[in-house]
Amino acid sequence: MLAPTALAPDTPAHTVDAFHRGRFWLVQPRHGHRAGMDAMMLAAAVPSGFAGRFADFGAGAGAAALAVLSRCPDARAVLVERSSEMADFAAATIAHPGNAHLAARASVLTADVTLSGRARGEAGLADNGFDFVIMNPPFNAAEDRATPDILRKQAHVTEDGLFEHWIRSAAAVVRPRGGLAVIARPEQLVAILDAIEGRFGDTEMLCVHPRPDAAAIRIVVRAVLGARGKLSIRPPLTLHGPTGNEPTDRTEMISNGLASLFGD
Amino acid sequence: MLAPTALAPDTPAHTVDAFHRGRFWLVQPRHGHRAGMDAMMLAAAVPSGFAGRFADFGAGAGAAALAVLSRCPDARAVLVERSSEMADFAAATIAHPGNAHLAARASVLTADVTLSGRARGEAGLADNGFDFVIMNPPFNAAEDRATPDILRKQAHVTEDGLFEHWIRSAAAVVRPRGGLAVIARPEQLVAILDAIEGRFGDTEMLCVHPRPDAAAIRIVVRAVLGARGKLSIRPPLTLHGPTGNEPTDRTEMISNGLASLFGD
Repeated sequence: MLAPTALAPDTPAHTVDAFHRGRFWLVQPRHGHRAGMDAMMLAAAVPSGFAGRFADFGAGAGAAALAVLSRCPDARAVLVERSSEMADFAAATIAHPGNAHLAARASVLTADVTLSGRARGEAGLADNGFDFVIMNPPFNAAEDRATPDILRKQAHVTEDGLFEHWIRSAAAVVRPRGGLAVIARPEQLVAILDAIEGRFGDTEMLCVHPRPDAAAIRIVVRAVLGARGKLSIRPPLTLHGPTGNEPTDRTEMISNGLASLFGD
Repeated sequence: MLAPTALAPDTPAHTVDAFHRGRFWLVQPRHGHRAGMDAMMLAAAVPSGFAGRFADFGAGAGAAALAVLSRCPDARAVLVERSSEMADFAAATIAHPGNAHLAARASVLTADVTLSGRARGEAGLADNGFDFVIMNPPFNAAEDRATPDILRKQAHVTEDGLFEHWIRSAAAVVRPRGGLAVIARPEQLVAILDAIEGRFGDTEMLCVHPRPDAAAIRIVVRAVLGARGKLSIRPPLTLHGPTGNEPTDRTEMISNGLASLFGD
């Protein structure tokens, strides 16, 4: 396990935010991507009774990984992050006094999850080393590149490559019958299902709608390495009531680490 | 237009069933696949304001096609059916006195929708001849073959081929910016989306759940030929309330031709 390092005095502006009603804290940059409901939903895809070692691919400051640790007392996490700046934030999160009850079960690995073969193992991601992988790929970045028409096809290829590479690595590092959970946007469903096919099975998908009458804004896909069961589509999660203001009870439960997304 | 033919005296046992609260009738065999909610949901995927010529691929006795005609007064239907026995039922449906108000807008074409190229045109399915194609492929048959483990891979290939061939033909016979609607099972989603990709766009998907807490039993996918917009996942249709007994109001509306599935 890497030693948690404190943020240096010249650390960029950051915030310390409470999650799970104060049961853990996140040290994250003030600007750029900030963790929130996506990380809580991804973490909630891990079964409540999960015991074992999991990897959080693209861990960022550690919100999803710590949310799993907070809900699952027998889980151990490796926060895998390519950016050394974000890996420092992840280490600062683990070192935060408010997370002292979780820190012994968490470590940070600075590594690129898109590496393959021997390079991936040498970066610290050994084959069959995990019981579960959760991932929140940088789909917003791929999205931004897709806007101009001329770049659309290229971006599409990039996006396919993104999920193919991330899920290929997950299939390598997870043990047989280990789990995978991915959160992404609806338009990335095909790339995800194509990358899952032939590797994982018993695939479950869940759509996240902001309101009962609105199109989905996220999908969460879960699967089991080497399983052969068919795709199942679970009841959706609706974040807010019809007015769009009040979160639903189920959203509150998931957001606060009191329920799992797939009911297990 | 083919002349509607009455069923011969030696016609197999059949029933005449009311749909849309008696606004049209279906003459169908007593045994084998019987039309019901699947056909009503598929028909409801056509926008209420649709005007033009549509094909119903795998029309069976005509339930989905007549449901569109019943709801859309400016729609004209070609019921495409490979089985000459079922095509006879479709013709009997059109000829039924209770459907006299719809009959002038319907015809039956006995043809195999999986034909390609010149053979498809010669069978009566000309390129660019339709404004919309609806299809209810025989997914139950593919499913039944998939049960034994040894046949699973083969059935999977068969299933992929099924949707690829049906959707390839739809892309050929529909005009640019014409529509496609497919109803199938959740496990067939990848095959459908793969077949749509590169042909249709602006894809919308909707999951059908039997109860609020149950996995989806059907998916309805709609798309536009040559469009390039991304996949959107619409709010699901829930058929029954939590007890599983009472149909929801929305189900009643769709079942009776009083609402469209996608709200247009």
